[in-house]
This record gives sequence, structure tokens and C-alpha cells, in this order.
Amino acid sequence: MDFATIIGFVAGLGLIFIAIVSRVGIGGFMLSFMDLPSIAITLGGTFAATMVNYSFHELVSVFAIAKNVFTQKDEDAIGIIDTVVSLTKKARTQSVLAIEQDIKALSNPFLRHGFSLVLANIDVETIRTELETEIIFLQERHKLGQEIFMTMGTFAPAFGMLGTIMGLIMMLAKLEDQSAIAGGMAVALLTTLYGALMANLIFLPVSGKLKRKSEDEVLIKEIIIEGIISMKNGDIPSIIESKLKAYLPPKKRERKIIKK
Amino acid sequence: MDFATIIGFVAGLGLIFIAIVSRVGIGGFMLSFMDLPSIAITLGGTFAATMVNYSFHELVSVFAIAKNVFTQKDEDAIGIIDTVVSLTKKARTQSVLAIEQDIKALSNPFLRHGFSLVLANIDVETIRTELETEIIFLQERHKLGQEIFMTMGTFAPAFGMLGTIMGLIMMLAKLEDQSAIAGGMAVALLTTLYGALMANLIFLPVSGKLKRKSEDEVLIKEIIIEGIISMKNGDIPSIIESKLKAYLPPKKRERKIIKK
Amino acid sequence: MDFATIIGFVAGLGLIFIAIVSRVGIGGFMLSFMDLPSIAITLGGTFAATMVNYSFHELVSVFAIAKNVFTQKDEDAIGIIDTVVSLTKKARTQSVLAIEQDIKALSNPFLRHGFSLVLANIDVETIRTELETEIIFLQERHKLGQEIFMTMGTFAPAFGMLGTIMGLIMMLAKLEDQSAIAGGMAVALLTTLYGALMANLIFLPVSGKLKRKSEDEVLIKEIIIEGIISMKNGDIPSIIESKLKAYLPPKKRERKIIKK
Amino acid sequence: MDFATIIGFVAGLGLIFIAIVSRVGIGGFMLSFMDLPSIAITLGGTFAATMVNYSFHELVSVFAIAKNVFTQKDEDAIGIIDTVVSLTKKARTQSVLAIEQDIKALSNPFLRHGFSLVLANIDVETIRTELETEIIFLQERHKLGQEIFMTMGTFAPAFGMLGTIMGLIMMLAKLEDQSAIAGGMAVALLTTLYGALMANLIFLPVSGKLKRKSEDEVLIKEIIIEGIISMKNGDIPSIIESKLKAYLPPKKRERKIIKK
Amino acid sequence: MDFATIIGFVAGLGLIFIAIVSRVGIGGFMLSFMDLPSIAITLGGTFAATMVNYSFHELVSVFAIAKNVFTQKDEDAIGIIDTVVSLTKKARTQSVLAIEQDIKALSNPFLRHGFSLVLANIDVETIRTELETEIIFLQERHKLGQEIFMTMGTFAPAFGMLGTIMGLIMMLAKLEDQSAIAGGMAVALLTTLYGALMANLIFLPVSGKLKRKSEDEVLIKEIIIEGIISMKNGDIPSIIESKLKAYLPPKKRERKIIKK
Repeated sequence: MDFATIIGFVAGLGLIFIAIVSRVGIGGFMLSFMDLPSIAITLGGTFAATMVNYSFHELVSVFAIAKNVFTQKDEDAIGIIDTVVSLTKKARTQSVLAIEQDIKALSNPFLRHGFSLVLANIDVETIRTELETEIIFLQERHKLGQEIFMTMGTFAPAFGMLGTIMGLIMMLAKLEDQSAIAGGMAVALLTTLYGALMANLIFLPVSGKLKRKSEDEVLIKEIIIEGIISMKNGDIPSIIESKLKAYLPPKKRERKIIKK
Repeated sequence: MDFATIIGFVAGLGLIFIAIVSRVGIGGFMLSFMDLPSIAITLGGTFAATMVNYSFHELVSVFAIAKNVFTQKDEDAIGIIDTVVSLTKKARTQSVLAIEQDIKALSNPFLRHGFSLVLANIDVETIRTELETEIIFLQERHKLGQEIFMTMGTFAPAFGMLGTIMGLIMMLAKLEDQSAIAGGMAVALLTTLYGALMANLIFLPVSGKLKRKSEDEVLIKEIIIEGIISMKNGDIPSIIESKLKAYLPPKKRERKIIKK
Repeated sequence: MDFATIIGFVAGLGLIFIAIVSRVGIGGFMLSFMDLPSIAITLGGTFAATMVNYSFHELVSVFAIAKNVFTQKDEDAIGIIDTVVSLTKKARTQSVLAIEQDIKALSNPFLRHGFSLVLANIDVETIRTELETEIIFLQERHKLGQEIFMTMGTFAPAFGMLGTIMGLIMMLAKLEDQSAIAGGMAVALLTTLYGALMANLIFLPVSGKLKRKSEDEVLIKEIIIEGIISMKNGDIPSIIESKLKAYLPPKKRERKIIKK
Repeated sequence: MDFATIIGFVAGLGLIFIAIVSRVGIGGFMLSFMDLPSIAITLGGTFAATMVNYSFHELVSVFAIAKNVFTQKDEDAIGIIDTVVSLTKKARTQSVLAIEQDIKALSNPFLRHGFSLVLANIDVETIRTELETEIIFLQERHKLGQEIFMTMGTFAPAFGMLGTIMGLIMMLAKLEDQSAIAGGMAVALLTTLYGALMANLIFLPVSGKLKRKSEDEVLIKEIIIEGIISMKNGDIPSIIESKLKAYLPPKKRERKIIKK
Repeated sequence: MDFATIIGFVAGLGLIFIAIVSRVGIGGFMLSFMDLPSIAITLGGTFAATMVNYSFHELVSVFAIAKNVFTQKDEDAIGIIDTVVSLTKKARTQSVLAIEQDIKALSNPFLRHGFSLVLANIDVETIRTELETEIIFLQERHKLGQEIFMTMGTFAPAFGMLGTIMGLIMMLAKLEDQSAIAGGMAVALLTTLYGALMANLIFLPVSGKLKRKSEDEVLIKEIIIEGIISMKNGDIPSIIESKLKAYLPPKKRERKIIKK
């Protein structure tokens, strides 16, 4: 679980809820801040514009990607490096075939697939191309997700503003008395509020988090590729470890170079 | 048909229509939200500025490109790959000339043109240049279309705002009584509403969809070029298939490499 | 003449004029929408800021460049290619010197200059450098023009807004009665209207059109360079034609490759 | 201490405090400008959205990075160059091992680490890779810090605006009398004020300063790498000095080249 | 003197001054448009934020750079080329040492320094590196200046808006009568006016002009480097002249190539 995302959502919405309820009570909140037509215009308009902008297939894939912002990848780079190094050691001391069972038991599918290519005795260049192509498609899929949320983060305030102008026109066109203006304007402003809230608490930060998650996932996969290529090339385990640790921030590596 | 585009337009306009009619009735909608001069200023101003910005020829070509957002290309990458592979097989088992009739029957004109170059025994470099030049011009034509819609998406809110200021000035300059202000302001705001709606439901998302469609079409054409070059170079069908499938996302390929 | 530019200007201004006159009459238009001090602030402020931003020399050159948006280049790429090919044929069948008179009669100065370098027997690399340098300076000159109009398109709404705030302050500071507020606000809003109109109907689209014209002119010049280099290198006319037509969109070329 | 940062904060906040107090007194300031719920919405909303956008780990690291804007690095480039040159001289006149104690006494950890690699007799390429990797990770860490502050500088005005709209809705929905409107609007505007102040006096300029500090720190580290590589390669001290001074602006070097 | 800058400032401020004075008189101008606290908030806030963003040293250097927008460089490219060519001729006909006195008399320090390197018999690569490094630092120093003015052009309207909101809050919180609202709003709007004026007449166009001046200065220096390298390499004067004139727009060169 990515608690930062959840706490962010809960804290953001909670703050606004409390700020309103503490001044106008729960009744006032329901009466003045919950308005279904306003939600329909802001959210519906945003989705409609997004649907024109993308294909069904792309929109559906967004939901699959969006759930990533709530999950935390278990695998860390250090664990991956340890796995690669220990498997390499075993393959050298025994034989490549000796690690076949270990590979089948690996939980990371990309690592498992990479090693299976080594077992199948595919040449280095083909392995690299095959695995790097997978990263490229992963990046494009992730980038599409970020882009769609970014787009929704642009459309939401626009439709919020649009809803407010619609409300203002309706209010002004059938103007009766001063107090009606104020009440009508309160309703009209709701869509702007919804649009700003959706964009700034959901769409834009989710797009940002997807970008960060994508970078993390790609880094792990790049370490895996480097490790598998290095193993296939017959590098000794300590060299592999040193090569892979160069992908980590200096603090996370134990320096061993000088002691060597 | 690209149903996402159509549903997006219908849902977006429908939502706004219903939101208005449910509050002020169909009569109020016609009276307060349909105003021909306001449409003329917003849309006319947008087209006028776009005309200054581009040439007649470019503007006309936009309509040809715009209809793409409603159509769905039948051909998918898998089908193209199958066609290339089966034609290569036939050419190898029989002769290059044996596939002449099949080529004439191909529905994809780019594929047909590519194979006709192979039949005409043109050298590889000339084929590549000829076909890639076609992609480059396609991309530029598509990019122009995206750019024009993007430009219209920038001008529409500007002329909407301009219309509102014009309306405000007229209203304020001949001010008589309070209710007249409100009514005049309602009319003045209409152009801002039209401008925001045109930009956010039509011009900007259409520009976005043109970009996505262009990427899909270019990918198909790149697969075709790679296939034709590969065939001309005498690669065996299984190698061609493997090369072309590298253009697909991993899920769409059946992995055959390990079983080999 | 570039009719798109002219029609764009006329249609844009005409629409706004008609929209105003149809509601407040020609008298109301002159009274409420024509205000010399407002024009002075918006246009004057824009020019003053532009003058700080650029040098006199650059500003003067803008007027020379700006008139390009009204003119349509006669020469099209096809005509240029035909000229190069026919001159090459004549030079091959007769002699390079035989085309000396034809070259002097060429209307395109860049083409004339290029051929004169060939006649003077300058080596290929010097010709290429000389002609490409000319394109680079042309592009920079054009880019400066686009940039200046873009800058004016940014300053105009800013000074329009500034004029409105000035007007509001004057109005609010000597406030007397309700109707005076409205009238003063109408005048104050005029500069915003002027700024938005100048930016969106003139400065920004003119900047855009200059960009498109520049691209067209550079393409023609690149075709000329390629043709002259190709001729100097002794390519046969049909090869030259095929090379130069690769610069054209596929529809404009007649395909001759397969028939060959 | 980086006094510019501190003076900037103090002067900016002081100016605004004085401007308010001089007109409404300290009592009016506390009454009208200090509103805890408004601070909670603006700052809380900004942090909530930032939390959705980044991970806990990244947010915590920001505080470590943010304190950099208050500290001034003691080490200047000239001092580093002198150290490298004098150590090189000593190593040449005596032996590499003779400088072991000096190296342990170096205050700059990057310089100390670099020299320890030379002492350990690691080959040039490994040293360069090791040290450059460290710079790359430093830059990414710094860039993340700049990015987070930039993001907060975007969210703060958005949540400020959002708070104002919330306030307006509450005010308009329970409208009673004219003066209540004015008072309510004053409170509503507070969040916009807070958002603008946080963004423009804190988040955005801090992001800017982090960028400048990062550039300075990276430059120092690049000089160190160049110096250590140069020493390892056996360059004579005067050459090393001349190479390293090329990283300095001309004024900071004493020119010695001509006198040589 | 760069008259465009001065005329731009004078004309911009003059226009606004006249527009105001012609309507409210010099007394009204002093009373309603000159407000020291408003200037303090806008300008002070802008400087405070800029101080947080940059270091003291950088801010001070800005003033040194800013005065460039008022000065016009005397040296033009043609004069520089003539000097280089004539010195080269003299060096060839007599000896390199014969031009020692001429070099000391050169007014352009970059040119003088470059030639002194040639006299000192430094090798070509060192000369090139030395001189190009100087250009790089010059560009960075210039870029910093542009960036600081650009930053101030962003902060000024922000603090202007902030001052207006402060004013509105003060006004609304102690609301008494209708006319007080109007007067208070007039004062509140002043900071927005100042911010917009500073940004659009001073900070942004000065940043723009610094960019143009930098480009001109760098071009001159690049011509000098090319000339000195060319002389050092022993090119004959006519070749040097032709090489250097390639840096000029075609109109400024007299074409001599064909006549040769």
C-alpha cells in the first residue's frame, strides 16, 4: 500500500470537509456543497472531452494504471541485485542448468523471463533487444496514463468554469431579487470548486505520482537487464554486483572498492 | 466508426443541455442560451484569426483530416504482419512474380505500393527512401491538422472573452436600470461560454485525438516498411515475423522464442 | 496576394463591427467603441515595450517582413524543379556555357545566384556552404519577425489590462454616482478589448503566418540547392528530377518509378 | 549562512506586515489577517496534494535539502584547486603514499573519497565512473527537491483560490445583509492571499535557489573529478592548475599563460 | 547609447502619464496614482523574492549587466573583420612581431587578448579552448542576467496582485459606506497597476533586450576566434576575409567570389 497517496487524499478532502462543517454544520454542507447536477457537469464534461481525446481502449487501460498509485512495489533494487548475484554464483559453481528451478520460483516476472532467455541460450543481442523493447512499451503505457490524467487535470477546471458561467447566465437571465442572485451565484460557483478540487487533489498529483512510480519501475528493470547481460557475458559475481550497485544512490551501496 | 469521439461529443453536449433544460426548461434554453450573434462572434472570430494564421489550402485540408477522428482504421498491426509473412512465404516457395496478383488485391494502398516496388526490382535503399519520405509527409500533414485545431482551441476562448467585454461595454455604456444590467450580462457571458465549450469539447480534444491517430497510422506504416525491406533482403519468414512483432506491445505477441 | 490573410482581417473586424452596430447603431459604435486615448495606451504601450525589447533596426525590418503576410509567392516547387531539370538537359546536350543567357533571365534571384556559381566553376562544397549560409540567415531574419509579432501579441493584452486598471482607479477615486461607475467602466474596458483584438486578430496570427511562409520559402530554397549541387555533380536530368520530387508531398509527384 | 535567503524572507514578510499594521494597527492585523482555518486549508491542501504526488521518503528528503537554502558552502573553487595542486606537488616530489595523512585530514568528503581511490590504485576509468555516478545521483536528488518546491508553488495558489471559492459559497448561501457580504469576502480572500504569498515568497524562490546551489555544488565536484583524473594520469601540477582554472570565470583566474 | 531602450521607457511611461493627467489633472495623478506603500509592497516584494531566489553576488552583478541595455556597442562586425584581415596582411608581409604594437593599441580587449596569444606562440588548440571558454562564461553571465529580469517580471505582477488582495481584505473588513469601498478599491488596485507596469515595460523587455545584446556580442567574439585561429593556421588574408564574412548576413558582404 502507498500510504502517502491515501493519506494525501483523506487529509485533503478531510481538511476541506472540516473547514466547511465547522462553519455551516453538516446540514449546511449537504445543502450548499453537495449538488449532483454540478458534479455531473464538471466530471461528466471532463470525461466527455477525455473520451473525444483518447480511444476507449486507452481510457480503460487508465484504470488499470491508476490503481498503481495506491500500491507499493515490494521488490527493492537491493533484493533484485542480491538475487542476480547469488544466482550467478550458483550457476558458476554448479552449472547454468542448476538454477532452472530457482528461476521458475522467482516472483518478479521480468527477472524470470530474462533468466529463461539465458537458459534458452539466446544470444546477448537478442536478449537485450527483447528486454529493452519491453521497457520501451512499459514506458509508453505509463506515459499514456500520466498524459490522460494530466489532460483530465486541464479539462476539469475548464468545465468547472464553464458550469459557473452557465449558472451565472441562468441566474442573470431570470433575475428577480438581490438574495436570489447570491444564492444562485453560490450554486454556480460549486462547479468551479469541484473542478479545482478534482484537478489539484486528484488528477494532477496522480499524474505526478504515476511518473515517479514509472521511473522507479523502469530503474528496477534496467538493473535486471544489466545483470542478465552481465551474467550471460560471463562476468564474475563481484563485478556484476559492482556494476549493478552503480544504479543505486551512493548511500545505499556499501563501498567495498577500497577494501578490495 | 470511432465511437469514443461520437459518444464524447454527444455526452458532453447532452449533459450541458440537460443541466440547463432541467432548470430553466426548453423555452429558457432557447431564449437565454441560443444567441446567433454570440455564435457568430465566437466562431467567426476564431475562423477569421485562423484564416490569417494559415493559408486557404491548409484550412481546407483540415476538414479532410478532421473526419479521421470519427473513423476507426480496420487494419490492425497483427493483420498486416500476417499478410507480409504469408506473402513472403509464397514468394519463397514459388517465386516473387507468383505474388503479383495477391499484391494487386491488397486493400492497404501503402502495403500495395511497397510490394509493387519490390516486384519492380527497385534497390533496397530507394525503396526505403521512397516509403519513409511518404511517412514524413504524412506526419507533417497530420501535425498541421493537430496544430490548426490547437490554434483554434486557443483563439476560441480569446474571442469568447472578447465578445463578453464587447457586451459589457455596450451594456454599461447605455445603462438604464439594475435588471437591464443583469440581462445584458447574461447575454455578454454567452460568448465566453461558447468559446470555452468549443475549445474544451471540440478543438482541443480533437487535436489530441488526431495526434493519437497519427501515431497509430505511422506505426502501421513503419511495420510495413520494415517488413518489405526485410523481404527484399531475403530474410526468412520466421525472422521477418519476429522483427515485426517487436513493434507490438509484448501482450499482443505470442512468445515463440523459447520454444524454438 | 494572400487572400486568406486579407479575408481573415476583413471578416474578423467586420463581424465585430456588425455585431456592435446592429445593437447600438453606428452612432453608439463611434461614441462607445472609438476612443483615441484608449488606442494610444494599448498600441503605444505595446510599441514602447517592444522598442525596449528590440533595437530600432530590428523593429524597422519587421515592417519589411510583415508585408509578406499579404503577398503570395508566384513560384511553386514544381516550376522550380522543371526549370532546373530543363536547364540541366540543355547544359548536357549543348554545354554549360550555353545556358548562360537562360540563367540571367531567371526571375528567382536565389536560383540565378546558384547557377551563376556553377557557371563560375566554384567547387561543390563552397557552393553548398554559400547557399546554405544564405538560408540560415533568411531563417534567422524570419524567426526574428515571428518573435517580434509574438512579443507584441503578449504585450498588447497586458497593456490593455493595464489601461483598464488605470481607468478603474480613476473612476473609483472620483466616484460620484452609480451611473458614472457604469460609464467609466465601459471606457476602462475598451483597452482590454483593443488589446485582446490586436493580439488575437493581428499579432499572434501574423506571427503564425510568417512561420508558415518561412517554411515554404525555405523548402523552395532547399530544393534549389539540392538541384544545383546535383547538376554540378553531373547527375543525369531524370535522377535530378527524382531527387527533387522527393521534397514534394506524394500527391504532387507523378509516379514514374514503376513504369521506368 | 546564506544571508540573501534570510533577508529575502524577513524583508518580504516584514514589508507586508508593516504595510498592513500601518493602516489597520496590530489589532486589525491579528483580527483580519490571521485566520487559522484559512492557513489550514491553503497549507494543508498544498501538502495533501504534494503527498499524493510524491512518496513519504521523497517528502522527508525535501526538508534535508531545503535547509541548504540557508547555508553557504565554505569551500570555494579556488581553495579546492589549490588543495589539489599542492597535494599533487607533494605526491610528485615525495610519493603518492606521502599524502595519505593529508587526504584523511581533508574536510571535503568528495575530495577525500576521490583521493582515496587514487591511493587504492584504482584505474582511471573506474574512478571517473564512480565519481561521476555520484554527481548524477546528487543532481537527481537536487532536481527532485527543486521539483517538489515547484509543485508546491503550483498547488498553493490553487488551494488558496479553492479556499476563497469555498468561502464565497458559504457566504453567498447564507446571505443576510450587505455588510456580512463584505466581511465574509474579506475572510474568503485570505486563503488566496496566503496561497500567493507562500508560492511567491517561499516555494518558487526556494526552488530557484536550490537550482542555483545545485549548479554551484556540481561545478565544484566536476573540478574535483577533473583534478583527480589529471593527477592519476600523471599531469604536472601547472597543467592541472591550468586545466582546473578553465572551469572558473576568467576574472577569477590570474592569467599566467603569456608570461610562461 | 541605445536610444530604442530609452525612447521605449520614456514613451511608455509618458503615454500613461499623459493619459492619466489629461483626465484627472496633475493633482489627481499625484493623489490617486502615487502611493508609496503600494510601491513598497510591489517593488519590495519582488526584490525580496528575487533575493531568496538568487545570491547577493548574482543580484549585484545584475546591475552591471542591466546598464548594457542602455549602451550601444561601437564595434561592428565589419570593422572587426577589417582589423583582423589588415593585421594578418601586415604579419605576412613583415613578420608576426611587427604587429605587436598594433595589437597593444586595439580597443577591443577580446581581440587584443586573442592576438597576444598568437604572439606568445601558444598552440591552436589551447588558443581555441581559452577563447571559447571565455565565450561560454560570458553567455552564462548574460543568461543569468536575462533569467533574473525574467524572474522579476514574474514576481512583480504576483506581488501586485497580492497587494491588491491585501487592500481588498483591509477595505472589506472595516467596511463603512459605499464610497469608502470605491476609494479603497482604487488604492488596492494600484499595486496591480505597478506590478503590471514594472513587468511589461521594464523587467520583461529588458530581459528580452539583454538576450539580443548577448547574441550580438557572442557573434562578434565568434568572428574574432575564427579570425585568430585562421591567422594562426596561416590562411591567406583573402581566405580569412571570406571565412569571416560568412558570419554576416548576405547583404552586408560585398560578393567577390564570382569576380575572382
